[in-house]
Amino acid sequence: MSVIAFIGLGAMGLPMAKNLLSKGFVVRGSDLNSTALDALVQSGGARTESAAEAARGADVLVLMVVSADQAESVLTQPGVLDGLVTAGVVCLMATCPSGAVERLSKLVVSAGRRFVDAPVSGGVAGAVAGSLTIMAAADRAIFDAVKPIFSALGERVFHVGEKPGQGAMVKTVNQLLCGVHIAVMAEAFSLAAKAGIDLELLLEIMRGSAASSWMLHDRGPRMLQDAPEVTSTVDIFVKDLSIVLETGKDVRAALPIAAAAQQLFLATSGRGDGLADDSQVIRSYHILNNVRAE
Amino acid sequence: MSVIAFIGLGAMGLPMAKNLLSKGFVVRGSDLNSTALDALVQSGGARTESAAEAARGADVLVLMVVSADQAESVLTQPGVLDGLVTAGVVCLMATCPSGAVERLSKLVVSAGRRFVDAPVSGGVAGAVAGSLTIMAAADRAIFDAVKPIFSALGERVFHVGEKPGQGAMVKTVNQLLCGVHIAVMAEAFSLAAKAGIDLELLLEIMRGSAASSWMLHDRGPRMLQDAPEVTSTVDIFVKDLSIVLETGKDVRAALPIAAAAQQLFLATSGRGDGLADDSQVIRSYHILNNVRAE
Repeated sequence: MSVIAFIGLGAMGLPMAKNLLSKGFVVRGSDLNSTALDALVQSGGARTESAAEAARGADVLVLMVVSADQAESVLTQPGVLDGLVTAGVVCLMATCPSGAVERLSKLVVSAGRRFVDAPVSGGVAGAVAGSLTIMAAADRAIFDAVKPIFSALGERVFHVGEKPGQGAMVKTVNQLLCGVHIAVMAEAFSLAAKAGIDLELLLEIMRGSAASSWMLHDRGPRMLQDAPEVTSTVDIFVKDLSIVLETGKDVRAALPIAAAAQQLFLATSGRGDGLADDSQVIRSYHILNNVRAE
Repeated sequence: MSVIAFIGLGAMGLPMAKNLLSKGFVVRGSDLNSTALDALVQSGGARTESAAEAARGADVLVLMVVSADQAESVLTQPGVLDGLVTAGVVCLMATCPSGAVERLSKLVVSAGRRFVDAPVSGGVAGAVAGSLTIMAAADRAIFDAVKPIFSALGERVFHVGEKPGQGAMVKTVNQLLCGVHIAVMAEAFSLAAKAGIDLELLLEIMRGSAASSWMLHDRGPRMLQDAPEVTSTVDIFVKDLSIVLETGKDVRAALPIAAAAQQLFLATSGRGDGLADDSQVIRSYHILNNVRAE
């Protein structure tokens, strides 16, 4: 498992590919972005002109694309799946709905290759530092075979189940909590602003109370700024909470709190703030309730 | 400010009164529960037969009752407000709606006494340890006058505003976040259970991820048990989220996420589980979505 075809060298994928190179793996990159390919070559990787060229004779195909549709379009290109060695493994590390992952798994297995559902958490910072959390689902033997790759990319590597789709499900649950924690913080802070509470002091109090969350520590300071640095956009949570609700629909589970949170991100994006920092979902509450922030 | 009439010697009030005694304050207790009065006397406090007797000549009246209605009924008893010294201060430390606190403040001021809105956070453990968070609103001079009392009760003492009701508002915002964090964790874990995810492993992953919260660490393990130890009941969040929504109504602010969370606590209580640990709000999701927990 030493030759890796790495498809998708974006903000997450490029630093992940570099970490694989630094741990001694052979990495052949494929991406539409020529600059990303140049950067990969400078770190010792190989540039390829297509996913099929990257896959030819590779042991592992890593997919770090932006959606399940993109993953499917890569996997159905001629020469990609059948280009891999016969014991080859496809590692889908992008965030996709659980049901879509199950379908992609069948596609791979029907081509005689193996599949690992392995989404990640930790953002660009975690990708760069090699400190990602990886939530992998696959037969234990397949998981064990590719574990050295995951260990090169992340610090917390979990085998969450045997069935493809279960990794995506854990990631979905993670994003459900993350998205709601941001939106409810906006709901709470906007209420406090309307009542004339000093929000900086409120944040200091909440950081040390039972109301605290990882998101409160991370997004809280940016939520109090009018135009903060963008670390993750409103539209990413529109996408991720859409995956949450699609998953709920697939398994027939009502998710009333996630659904309410999604509406606020949607409204924020709908007013043209989709590329703002996700903390700016608070603008929807301010507008909804006629709150003038201090 | 050395003689304190302490009204309400319940699970929170009694240990708070004991902490005041241990710091050298004179404490005269009033409660319907004779056992609590005995315990106060054993710690060096004085037993009184009525709130008016406790208040007579006291510098400070601390209210640690269960509701704004109870607080009002104490303050309107003959001899209570006019029994305090002329510079006397009423400290309302119970959790009450912000609007009710404003009304109680006016009652006290119209009797020529001073008022501090000072709810607490930290639960029974914090009350016993003297490590409460205290969120006080009052004129700065009044706050400074009673601060030694707060410092005897808590480790994190904040002056959150000049207007009575602002302390209650901060506590309300705190409870909004706490209640939603518990309910959304139930939503997420029930979805995961339906998908066959190992919930113990899920909890371990979420504890170290961006999905983490104080409540996830505290309530998470109990949420995975069928009949956990009760540390705080479902009905307490029915009450606290009712205060949140009443506050939203008073200030005319829509709080869609808190409202959704409240429905789940209500349903849990409505099925007869109001006295179960608040983590058991997950039962409502399991029933709603026909999830059989492992």
